[in-house]
Amino acid sequence: MFSTVLIANRGEIALRVARTCREMGIRTVAVYSTADRDSAVVRFADEAVHIGAPPAKGSYLSVPAVIEAALQTGAQAIHPGYGFLSEDPDFAEICEAHDIVFIGPPPQVMQQLGDKAAARSLMAQAGLPVLPGSMDALTSPAEAKELARQVGYPVILKAVAGGGGRGMAVVRSADDLRLAYNETRAHARAVFGDDRLYLERFVDDARHIEVQVLCDRHGNAVHLGERDCSVQRRHQKLIEEAPATGLPRELREAMLAAAVHGATAVGFVGAGTFEFVVTPDDRFYLMEINCRLQVEHPVTELVTGIDIVREQISVAAGLPLSFRQSDITLRGVAVECRVNAENPDNAFSPTPGLLSEFVPPGGPFVRVDTHAYPGWLVGPDYDSLLAKAAVWAPDREQALARMDRALSEFRVSGHGVHTTLGFLRRTLAHPLFQAALHTTGLVGAMTAEEADRDGDASKESAPVG
Amino acid sequence: MFSTVLIANRGEIALRVARTCREMGIRTVAVYSTADRDSAVVRFADEAVHIGAPPAKGSYLSVPAVIEAALQTGAQAIHPGYGFLSEDPDFAEICEAHDIVFIGPPPQVMQQLGDKAAARSLMAQAGLPVLPGSMDALTSPAEAKELARQVGYPVILKAVAGGGGRGMAVVRSADDLRLAYNETRAHARAVFGDDRLYLERFVDDARHIEVQVLCDRHGNAVHLGERDCSVQRRHQKLIEEAPATGLPRELREAMLAAAVHGATAVGFVGAGTFEFVVTPDDRFYLMEINCRLQVEHPVTELVTGIDIVREQISVAAGLPLSFRQSDITLRGVAVECRVNAENPDNAFSPTPGLLSEFVPPGGPFVRVDTHAYPGWLVGPDYDSLLAKAAVWAPDREQALARMDRALSEFRVSGHGVHTTLGFLRRTLAHPLFQAALHTTGLVGAMTAEEADRDGDASKESAPVG
Repeated sequence: MFSTVLIANRGEIALRVARTCREMGIRTVAVYSTADRDSAVVRFADEAVHIGAPPAKGSYLSVPAVIEAALQTGAQAIHPGYGFLSEDPDFAEICEAHDIVFIGPPPQVMQQLGDKAAARSLMAQAGLPVLPGSMDALTSPAEAKELARQVGYPVILKAVAGGGGRGMAVVRSADDLRLAYNETRAHARAVFGDDRLYLERFVDDARHIEVQVLCDRHGNAVHLGERDCSVQRRHQKLIEEAPATGLPRELREAMLAAAVHGATAVGFVGAGTFEFVVTPDDRFYLMEINCRLQVEHPVTELVTGIDIVREQISVAAGLPLSFRQSDITLRGVAVECRVNAENPDNAFSPTPGLLSEFVPPGGPFVRVDTHAYPGWLVGPDYDSLLAKAAVWAPDREQALARMDRALSEFRVSGHGVHTTLGFLRRTLAHPLFQAALHTTGLVGAMTAEEADRDGDASKESAPVG
Repeated sequence: MFSTVLIANRGEIALRVARTCREMGIRTVAVYSTADRDSAVVRFADEAVHIGAPPAKGSYLSVPAVIEAALQTGAQAIHPGYGFLSEDPDFAEICEAHDIVFIGPPPQVMQQLGDKAAARSLMAQAGLPVLPGSMDALTSPAEAKELARQVGYPVILKAVAGGGGRGMAVVRSADDLRLAYNETRAHARAVFGDDRLYLERFVDDARHIEVQVLCDRHGNAVHLGERDCSVQRRHQKLIEEAPATGLPRELREAMLAAAVHGATAVGFVGAGTFEFVVTPDDRFYLMEINCRLQVEHPVTELVTGIDIVREQISVAAGLPLSFRQSDITLRGVAVECRVNAENPDNAFSPTPGLLSEFVPPGGPFVRVDTHAYPGWLVGPDYDSLLAKAAVWAPDREQALARMDRALSEFRVSGHGVHTTLGFLRRTLAHPLFQAALHTTGLVGAMTAEEADRDGDASKESAPVG
């Protein structure tokens, strides 16, 4: 086993990885940007190395700075967390070249799956269902238009190098295609440094269901069940749960088997996620494969009892998985809510500020992952995730009541800081969510409803005469 | 189901009960003394009633004040937590007289089991093994001496009305008996208002193993497995775990069956705990039965997935248990540590003070129950429990590593405030504890070892010549 692991990330996930390392008796090295010098992980880790300042390009995305920190501190492996360098095959190769183990899939697997258009094609060949659309990057708006005509509107344009819900646009008619194409391309170039796009059929009222897989280097591949991540704002998840309620048994088993089959076909190693869209008529299609830990992995940990980061590290050290598929049993229901420092009433725009109060919930069956504490400055440089609140219960009804209780006691305040806490509680209480009949359209519909109500309310309160 | 429940307690347990009430959709009423006006539960509860000032006699132990608060707020039931009025049959009767449900066993059961000498006798009749000793209260030091001679030294003197590790003394020779008798009697009178004592054989190097039972009013009685609570200082628990490691299978099953049998025999209703002593030669003897929630109930909740407070409330409302014995499965290992505001280097004496910093641990499989927060004043009036840190893991080795990690990130500071955090970590690391070979003598042995080492160290650092 490694004696020292460097964590090439920040925020809650850096702390989460460091926690497991400590439990495994592994010395941890944190890296941090100037903005994060007072971060919880900097204090928690056995050693911390300053690697630059925001923006990320000069710190968490700086391959030389991260490699240098690993060499200086004698780290034998690097855990990349999610985002930043976690799905960068070049970084994984550079690690290898420096005799540092990259805790993730082999670079060639990341290469194949990181090109989302090529991954679609590869997985279709392996027999997984994919939505009608491109099997390669688009070369022009005209080609996009022709393909969209063939598959039928609505379609979604996505960055080949995309991920995390960024660099995508739903297009509902041919008239809107050229503009959307150019905008998404510009966005993809700015965010990912790669402006290639692909296109697929977009399904309204779909569910986002994903399957967690774990694979070792000894040919073992297992799934840890599925997660429902349909509550999203701007293609980014807000609430996740495990297992997915109300999936027909055959559909569920087919998805789980497809994920394990796909992982095996591509030679996957480590923790990965197969993201599927499930249509209203109970068909499923692969959207993409993520070669990293997901933000929402805690719900899977809570129902399986498995520490996914521990398995990632063991597998990266060459050990076989410590269990077989038949050893994995799911128990109860877990739900996670993302508590973001953002304003739901203002299009979920980030609201940075100094936290004067920060008291996370506790008690029975509540788990909180956070890097925040009273006095923490929520900066404008990174994403707005403040904390992940997760709960476990024997059934979904109790889990939702428990989550509402947990959110009701979460106290966050700070000048200018808004949070998603209230919006999350309204979503939990929404009849469609309560009945598990919600789709990826829920947040949009709620936002529209609330805007309507606010509009009516302001009309009502307008001066008379 | 009740629409309003009053919680006749304070601190972490009041908050813990309120959390479950909220999850069940039950309105909560907190009661508080002047010293607790800024307590977390006062903020959390739907309503809070001021019932007096310290000491407890004028607030949490004031039956008229508590009953009045319940009547004023329309509470249909009272949850007494642990300590204070939780095992007072008179209080339970007064509740009944006011048409308020007491969430606990029937008064006559509490009466029978609350007299610890009579309970020994009752359970011996029911066929449970008890240690040799009194079958009734002692009437004189001479009687105690004669009985001690018969059962053999060491013996332990205990208050008939005792509990929570208070009002007891180990006596190792006849010479010490009279003094111990008089001292313990005076202590029992001061603490419990009842100076009756009883005596039983004391077992050195024993394990403290207890069985959680749940019984409804429909004749269902189940156990939720056992807990090992052998790590104690002054007969008060510091570390608890579920299940107990290394118990021979037959012994374990006999204890579990004995607890269910004893509960059934006495007509028990609600949550109770059968506390046993397990001797080095693997025999078990009943020590006492607690008619209330235990401080350490979270470890049982973590391995069973059952919310014990929820079941207490359901049962008190007349509902049958929602599961049978065969539905209850134990998963993994849970450990709890009591983080007290006290100084282990000064005989665990309480260290009150204002908390300037209070950041509890989080992340995978960690549960914290606490009423404290930054700015909370740890007063001198109540017990020194600051927080209970509990963890779950698939096996004991991982659970201990996880607990050490959790304690390592727990940050508590305040002028004059010491905590048990460091001592708990040293205990977790102790070879006997690691090997699960520890007994109730562990803390005493560690304290002696540490005092020896300190003594040697001060000799070494004494000026030379």
